[in-house]
Amino acid sequence: MQNFIFNTPTRVLFGKNAEENVGGLVREFGGHCVLLHYGGGSAERSGLLARIRQSLTGEGLRFVELGGVVPNPRLSLVHEGIALGRREGVDFVLAVGGGSVIDSAKAIGYGLVDDGELWDFYEKKRKASGCAPIGAVPTIAAAGSEMSASSVITKEEGWVKRGYSSEYARPRFAVMNPDLTLTLPSWQTASGCVDILMHTMERYFHRNDGMELTDGIAETLLRTVMKHALVLRDEPSNYESRAEIMWAGSLSHNGLTGCGTDGGDWACHKLEHELSGLFDVSHGAGLAAIWGSWARYVYRFDAARFARFAHKVMGVSGAGTHEEMAEKGIAAMENFFRAIRMPVSLTELGVHPAEDQMREMAEKCCLAVGGKAGVIRPLAVEDMVEIYRMAL
Amino acid sequence: MQNFIFNTPTRVLFGKNAEENVGGLVREFGGHCVLLHYGGGSAERSGLLARIRQSLTGEGLRFVELGGVVPNPRLSLVHEGIALGRREGVDFVLAVGGGSVIDSAKAIGYGLVDDGELWDFYEKKRKASGCAPIGAVPTIAAAGSEMSASSVITKEEGWVKRGYSSEYARPRFAVMNPDLTLTLPSWQTASGCVDILMHTMERYFHRNDGMELTDGIAETLLRTVMKHALVLRDEPSNYESRAEIMWAGSLSHNGLTGCGTDGGDWACHKLEHELSGLFDVSHGAGLAAIWGSWARYVYRFDAARFARFAHKVMGVSGAGTHEEMAEKGIAAMENFFRAIRMPVSLTELGVHPAEDQMREMAEKCCLAVGGKAGVIRPLAVEDMVEIYRMAL
Repeated sequence: MQNFIFNTPTRVLFGKNAEENVGGLVREFGGHCVLLHYGGGSAERSGLLARIRQSLTGEGLRFVELGGVVPNPRLSLVHEGIALGRREGVDFVLAVGGGSVIDSAKAIGYGLVDDGELWDFYEKKRKASGCAPIGAVPTIAAAGSEMSASSVITKEEGWVKRGYSSEYARPRFAVMNPDLTLTLPSWQTASGCVDILMHTMERYFHRNDGMELTDGIAETLLRTVMKHALVLRDEPSNYESRAEIMWAGSLSHNGLTGCGTDGGDWACHKLEHELSGLFDVSHGAGLAAIWGSWARYVYRFDAARFARFAHKVMGVSGAGTHEEMAEKGIAAMENFFRAIRMPVSLTELGVHPAEDQMREMAEKCCLAVGGKAGVIRPLAVEDMVEIYRMAL
Repeated sequence: MQNFIFNTPTRVLFGKNAEENVGGLVREFGGHCVLLHYGGGSAERSGLLARIRQSLTGEGLRFVELGGVVPNPRLSLVHEGIALGRREGVDFVLAVGGGSVIDSAKAIGYGLVDDGELWDFYEKKRKASGCAPIGAVPTIAAAGSEMSASSVITKEEGWVKRGYSSEYARPRFAVMNPDLTLTLPSWQTASGCVDILMHTMERYFHRNDGMELTDGIAETLLRTVMKHALVLRDEPSNYESRAEIMWAGSLSHNGLTGCGTDGGDWACHKLEHELSGLFDVSHGAGLAAIWGSWARYVYRFDAARFARFAHKVMGVSGAGTHEEMAEKGIAAMENFFRAIRMPVSLTELGVHPAEDQMREMAEKCCLAVGGKAGVIRPLAVEDMVEIYRMAL
């Protein structure tokens, strides 16, 4: 078991009408002038933004707005937010939307307290020394950014997608109302569920002994998400299932499912970042399309772990060798992805990278991680190209 | 599912040598003059206090000391700590020891920022509006006070034991090194394990639909604690098992296992508080002595829940009626208590309350909760007397 730090300062208000507390929370956490940051028109059409504005106004808070965040959020909009925030004296960033909006808010938060080149953080050239306080009102259960330290931004020049994590960026509060997710299209819901599963699975596939309590929590979380993802496929407006998935999304990425491990194997996430950087696909769907190929490429290097996953999470019988169980577990997870109508290949994802594009992604990936990616079997460029090929 | 707030601001540093960071953490969280608060001589003899003093001195921090905290910590010592703290200009309370020390530190923390009568909070006559910042270095896995909002203090006059919870009192940090618990006597270890189990079980026995993810986490936590409590019975210096139990202790009482529920049924804790208030017994052992009688008295009012507990936690087969499964589950838990040499009756606990003492405890208990206790079957005075009788 490895030493660990567990740091989850984000105060979560979870449940119906939770967003009504936004204004009071911003005030409590010291905000005076708020950058209200959001994505497309759905938050406007649903009336959510109107309720948020009312809550801010009700507390006498000044605010300026910046909408237009897109999936795989762009560095240019982040720069726009920083400029706007500085001009207006913003001291709090309130993100209303999905993981892209919250990630983008964190990047703006870094920029508001730092005069240097923001992208340096994402290229690991230097470390943040602070972040403007962030509040989050997630409208989709997926990225877990509302409790996490991480943010992922895409630089348009060269379509480079990079993540950066620092404890400064953990939101001060998250206001989580499952009702806000009831009307999400089923494809987005399913894609979010895959992202949640993967945040725990990437931590679960570690190489040290880990911690039994952490493993048990991870396994129950994975089983719960899979069960309720299937419920939502058939009953998208089931509040209880929306709530289970939403809370699982936060616990999946706030650190809880990684306590005592070596951090896990994040190769699959890295491989996908290159994919959605280059082809602008949805992160969750991209993960589903690639996971089976990654798993088949690496499982022999820790067949016992994959066998445990197969047994405890996927319900595969304990009979047979570790390798046989592992293969059944991988196939079972792919069948689950199919059941919620997620792609299990790049073709099904609608992406057809040429050989040189696969190599370009693999090279960018190794550059991003500064060497090999993952711990089950650390992957070099050739390994990655092979996994992309297997996933075609 | 009920709306909930999840608030766990305590930064946890977990693992070997974690206590070396104490000075830096106090400084980071704004402390200048520290009240170093501890219990008996074991922290001194083991060299722990020397290392803590060195860490504080190394950061240039001023500190004053107050030792002598006993189990079921006393109000008089709390008052002494408040007076000392005020005299010396203390702005941070560092608790080194078990739950009693941390609870006592929280009470001192309330008193340092409030001029009124401290006991008012514990009698629910008024609410705290702040608390001096607390840091915790737990030396036993049990109370979970290092991440919790609660503290329990005993007023010597009338031997009244009362709890009070407020978010202000959650420690700023907890430094948790399982090595510090390796030499605990087996009886204290087992008693701590019971307390940990009960913090999750009291939340688990709720009356609303709750949340499946919360139930799953609670069940895996309970199974993990039982497994490692048995390991520690035979191998008290097993680091991995000490770590599993220590982390479970924090997660058991930081709110995680109560998300989405009605809060649970805390009658058993209340009944025990009267017991240890009057007879000064160990809290965990007192809970073990009384739980079976409580469970047998109430299980018919939610047999399905007790059947689930029996099946998922105690491994009882799913065959039979809910009532039959529930009874088997209760018996299995009592057998587990016996296996770790915990008492399952007041006689085994070494306490022989007379009829009028049982009534006195029941009346004090109802007074403390302001009516009936618990939710599975809300208990009035006569119910409580009957449970104490059953537990004889």
